[in-house]
Amino acid sequence: MTFSFDLLGTDGAARAGTLHTAHGDVPTPTFMAVGTAGTVKAMTADAVRSTGAKIVLGNTYHLMLRPTAERVARLGGLHKMMDWPGPILTDSGGFQVMSLAKLRKMTEDGVTFRSHIDGTAYHLTPERSMEIQHLLDSTITMVLDECTKFPATHDEAAASMRMSTRWAKRSRDAFIPREGYGQFGIVQGSVYEDLRKESAAALRELDFEGYAIGGLAVGEGQESMFAMLDITAPLLPTQKPRYLMGVGTPDDLLGSVARGVDMFDCVMPTRAGRTARAFTSHGVFNLRNARFIDDGRPLDESCSCLCCTRHTRAYLHHLIRAEEILGPMLLTTHNLTYYQSLMQGARAAILENRYAAYCEKTRAGWEDAKNG
Amino acid sequence: MTFSFDLLGTDGAARAGTLHTAHGDVPTPTFMAVGTAGTVKAMTADAVRSTGAKIVLGNTYHLMLRPTAERVARLGGLHKMMDWPGPILTDSGGFQVMSLAKLRKMTEDGVTFRSHIDGTAYHLTPERSMEIQHLLDSTITMVLDECTKFPATHDEAAASMRMSTRWAKRSRDAFIPREGYGQFGIVQGSVYEDLRKESAAALRELDFEGYAIGGLAVGEGQESMFAMLDITAPLLPTQKPRYLMGVGTPDDLLGSVARGVDMFDCVMPTRAGRTARAFTSHGVFNLRNARFIDDGRPLDESCSCLCCTRHTRAYLHHLIRAEEILGPMLLTTHNLTYYQSLMQGARAAILENRYAAYCEKTRAGWEDAKNG
Repeated sequence: MTFSFDLLGTDGAARAGTLHTAHGDVPTPTFMAVGTAGTVKAMTADAVRSTGAKIVLGNTYHLMLRPTAERVARLGGLHKMMDWPGPILTDSGGFQVMSLAKLRKMTEDGVTFRSHIDGTAYHLTPERSMEIQHLLDSTITMVLDECTKFPATHDEAAASMRMSTRWAKRSRDAFIPREGYGQFGIVQGSVYEDLRKESAAALRELDFEGYAIGGLAVGEGQESMFAMLDITAPLLPTQKPRYLMGVGTPDDLLGSVARGVDMFDCVMPTRAGRTARAFTSHGVFNLRNARFIDDGRPLDESCSCLCCTRHTRAYLHHLIRAEEILGPMLLTTHNLTYYQSLMQGARAAILENRYAAYCEKTRAGWEDAKNG
Repeated sequence: MTFSFDLLGTDGAARAGTLHTAHGDVPTPTFMAVGTAGTVKAMTADAVRSTGAKIVLGNTYHLMLRPTAERVARLGGLHKMMDWPGPILTDSGGFQVMSLAKLRKMTEDGVTFRSHIDGTAYHLTPERSMEIQHLLDSTITMVLDECTKFPATHDEAAASMRMSTRWAKRSRDAFIPREGYGQFGIVQGSVYEDLRKESAAALRELDFEGYAIGGLAVGEGQESMFAMLDITAPLLPTQKPRYLMGVGTPDDLLGSVARGVDMFDCVMPTRAGRTARAFTSHGVFNLRNARFIDDGRPLDESCSCLCCTRHTRAYLHHLIRAEEILGPMLLTTHNLTYYQSLMQGARAAILENRYAAYCEKTRAGWEDAKNG
């Protein structure tokens, strides 16, 4: 099984395809559930599968600290450890070193930091990140980069992007190819068109199996993000998958798919599920709200998940008020199912050249939140 | 469907049978998973079913406070609300009023208390407890009684038991019979043989569908508890199910089944699952212990649950250290499966007249905890 991407159809800039990997196929566009520490929070692997998820994401930063990459390897790899034989993408660790770790120091060689758990010192380089992701048995390895802070001046963004480019080269050299496994480069350049072009061109030279768009969804707003996607997506090879990192709301996903993105990941549906919020075809609900106390309707009547087919909004409200673990379990199940359904619907619509109508109808449904 | 009990076999005082109810059959001896607030903590209803559970318990005290019995009734009853169409036994609320509520005041009429959640005042009488359990659509309703404190003098125990007997009569009068539904009386009398006899005789006059043994597992120790079971069980009708309330450890269950008990409930397997403890055929493990950090074996190689067939002890240890919700989810699944398997094994052994050997072999396995 070669790692490959079949582009099956387009509708404007929107794309529908299939990603082939050593661990199975992934229809795109696709949303990757975030399994930070070797578990999608509040979900069994069977429950994750029940949402329609085909690929999950693991966080190198968390896993390298605990249980450690070497231990995961001894346990047979991340797939076996977390009961997920399907494809897994791991990030490089760089983003979370900058957001979570203590006493960070970045040099050309890499980044030195202390664990947020116990203060242990670590040194993460492109080479070590590739080694860790190899030990984890990651289906898709991400290069180590620096997620450029926002806002950044043109000079700052250029310097940061060029170091990421040098790290991308070192990451590519350190990557150990395996049949059906791939490695993605990450385009940086902040909100500067010339830098995005320079970054994309340099990464294309390295011929990655896929390309991520990084440095977005960091505070620039949806309008700027979409503008950067309009610029960046056309710079990427048509026949390779495109992954927008850390995005986003259902509306962000629809707009990004329209601009040519194939893959997404975000903690939003899982985190929301642990804080009483539900993404539905009628918009976002906060199930803690007293208006649900006697609401005997399913959370989302158009959803086929366990939460929506077996339980009422009133029961979910009760579980949340009573601080029962089943509340987050059911809401996470629903939210991930909603995200998967959104992407499945997008794919079907793209293949039938009715993606704009699909987006319009979906967005109209969200306006109905108050009456939902 | 009449509510009835078929005694299918005995081995010494141990009994194997089948309880027939409006909501399905329950092979006995059986362990009832505790679903306090309308959910077995950290478990979907499907997960509870996967453990082999045939009947669950709901707590009247918790449910009357939140979401309230009237609201549960409007939502179609507890079975529908929690996705458990099978049999449900509810307690009377009395025990938890005494252990959880504030400003309790007991009179001949009933007990007045304030909610531990928001201080709201309630008055619980035998008649109101029966009404609440009816609204919940409980398959098995328990009479309201006073769980006699331990230790109690003979005079205190006698006065308490006699009030419980008067409340049992009022509970029987207030119970609304429905086809396939039943009501259980509760024998009290502390550790006094004459009082247990008086209580049992009075309750037999009321011809309940089953009989519970209350006021045990309240600090008297296993030896005293077993001594009281030796005295009390023979006082109860052979053809009615016998339920030992709030018990206990796997060893308590084996010893109580040997003395003629058919039904149990206890928070132990679920609570232990949320605090890193696992009941296994090799004894009790604390998965937080560092000795499991590299243990690639299943938690219990003889168990067929999701936790044991898909994951390692090292992964469970990791989940607990990382405070991931999946840890309690998997350990609760395992612990409940272990309790169900223990009861299934007991039933099979009783029917084949090898119950003593079954207990001996099971207890020998627990001694292996250190090497497990």
